[in-house]
Amino acid sequence: MRQGKGLRPTLSIATCRALGGDVQAVLPSAATLELFHNAFLVHDDVEDESLMRRGEPTLHTTHGVPIAINVGDAMLSLSLQPLLDNMAVVGLGRALRILRAVAGMTKESVEGQALELDWIRNGRWDLGADDYVTMVVKKTGWYSFIVPMQVGALAAGVVDDGRLRSLVPFGIALAVAFQITDDLLNLKATPDAYGKEIGGDLWEGKRTLILLHALRTASEEDRARAVAILSRPRASSTAGMHAVLERMAADGRISPDAARELEQALGAAAKPPKAIEDVQWLFDLIGRQGSLEVARDTAVLYASRAREQLAELDWIPPSRHRAVLEDLTAYVHERAR
Amino acid sequence: MRQGKGLRPTLSIATCRALGGDVQAVLPSAATLELFHNAFLVHDDVEDESLMRRGEPTLHTTHGVPIAINVGDAMLSLSLQPLLDNMAVVGLGRALRILRAVAGMTKESVEGQALELDWIRNGRWDLGADDYVTMVVKKTGWYSFIVPMQVGALAAGVVDDGRLRSLVPFGIALAVAFQITDDLLNLKATPDAYGKEIGGDLWEGKRTLILLHALRTASEEDRARAVAILSRPRASSTAGMHAVLERMAADGRISPDAARELEQALGAAAKPPKAIEDVQWLFDLIGRQGSLEVARDTAVLYASRAREQLAELDWIPPSRHRAVLEDLTAYVHERAR
Repeated sequence: MRQGKGLRPTLSIATCRALGGDVQAVLPSAATLELFHNAFLVHDDVEDESLMRRGEPTLHTTHGVPIAINVGDAMLSLSLQPLLDNMAVVGLGRALRILRAVAGMTKESVEGQALELDWIRNGRWDLGADDYVTMVVKKTGWYSFIVPMQVGALAAGVVDDGRLRSLVPFGIALAVAFQITDDLLNLKATPDAYGKEIGGDLWEGKRTLILLHALRTASEEDRARAVAILSRPRASSTAGMHAVLERMAADGRISPDAARELEQALGAAAKPPKAIEDVQWLFDLIGRQGSLEVARDTAVLYASRAREQLAELDWIPPSRHRAVLEDLTAYVHERAR
Repeated sequence: MRQGKGLRPTLSIATCRALGGDVQAVLPSAATLELFHNAFLVHDDVEDESLMRRGEPTLHTTHGVPIAINVGDAMLSLSLQPLLDNMAVVGLGRALRILRAVAGMTKESVEGQALELDWIRNGRWDLGADDYVTMVVKKTGWYSFIVPMQVGALAAGVVDDGRLRSLVPFGIALAVAFQITDDLLNLKATPDAYGKEIGGDLWEGKRTLILLHALRTASEEDRARAVAILSRPRASSTAGMHAVLERMAADGRISPDAARELEQALGAAAKPPKAIEDVQWLFDLIGRQGSLEVARDTAVLYASRAREQLAELDWIPPSRHRAVLEDLTAYVHERAR
């Protein structure tokens, strides 16, 4: 019941209609992509311990991790049926090609997610812009941009493999520009305009182009401090306990010795979490290193590339539906600047 | 790389071959079912906070929750491709019917899981044997018994809906008998023979036929005590801290007042977990109420019903492959006694 952007169905429907297809032909596939996206977001939020999504607390914080995992599984499971019902709508041949595109897309997504989780698990921060782009294309490029458009084209009756493949570089450029600007907004926006947490990416230690640039260009000392902060957990169930201990020690109600021993016992249960000052320091580091500007330039570069790629897709004739793709590309370009 | 029973592929292959089908015709579907099962187990273990699986620590305890969730998603995603490749193996018509059976099966599973998680979330213990059976049939009956056999029959070329439907009551009876005996073994077996944790179901507060019977027949006082124990978490990251506090208070290193205040601060962070004595008391309650015997009788009843249902499936001619189904049914019957 939350308001989403509906980006993936929009891309599917616009592509289908721009190619002369009927909206009914693409609706089941568009619904599937939106279901898949929501499943992925719910699981992603559990994995990243994210607190906010679309302006409200994430599902696992309100309903618990077990229910959130199962809701994601349910949405993944339910996404198969519309693709099977599709056969009555677009015919067997098209429905099967759409199924294959979706199967390939989900594989890319989980591989991208695996890549990112592997970096987190191994505390990897020695990553370049190319690593970031590879991860983004796998994690969101295929399911959010490339396959939505391919599915729209397939639903409209496009059978030429060359045409379907030519949507790939456009989708990649759009995806990377989109993700970088998303990462930039995470550091800037007010909750009303954006719906996610402010600076949530820093609290989560997300490998963004921005943060990776700051780490790559920082002094050895700053980098070590940043990595130490980023390796701490976001929050701790024992944070309140630390505060009580501190106060009782200050009031002289427990001895310094006892306080130290208790802190140690507590420390064994949970690493101290990131403090607001730590995250502020990361913000400042990013500012000092000029990483926001570098990321913005990169996003503009990819957005321009997307504009060029779209211009080459001349087999999609001009129409108010093609204009949706053009407007989106222009919007991403504008948002990046 | 862990040793599983391979129950689902076994059912698929035996049914297919018993009906004159080739093993190659059923292999992709059988692999899909095993993938789906493993995906479901990995997510299930996260949701139940299970510690052991197939004699080894669960995936989320060794690799963390985020990776375990993504591994489950990956296995779910990868299970689609073999079903699409199936078209070249068994032809379009059969492949599509298999896809539809799998789509229906996954829906049942997530609904069964949702039912169980809803009971946990709402602290529901006022459940009857019928609730338990409904949950088991949805959660495991379809994907572990009914659909594996249907898929085997479809791969062998069975097109008659009546025959496919007649596998349902057999699968249901087998599933319920199987699950009850599984629950019984969880309370009895040694780790070597079984591979799961001993009494893990009690630590997790799993709604088994056994525990539900004990609660239903216990005195009001015993039931209240049991529900209070079952509502506590399995473990707590602050358990060590409780122990340190207790020792320091006993040694007089902190005042009783300070100890109480710190315990309270700690208590706000985490409910005290179940103690081994609590779980032992639940064991004893189950013994006193004769719940093991009642569950065993119910399992034998369902196993007998499965035997009768299988005898009626006379369109599966006698062979060493049909014998696999008969042996499995006899094994379940034997295991229950």
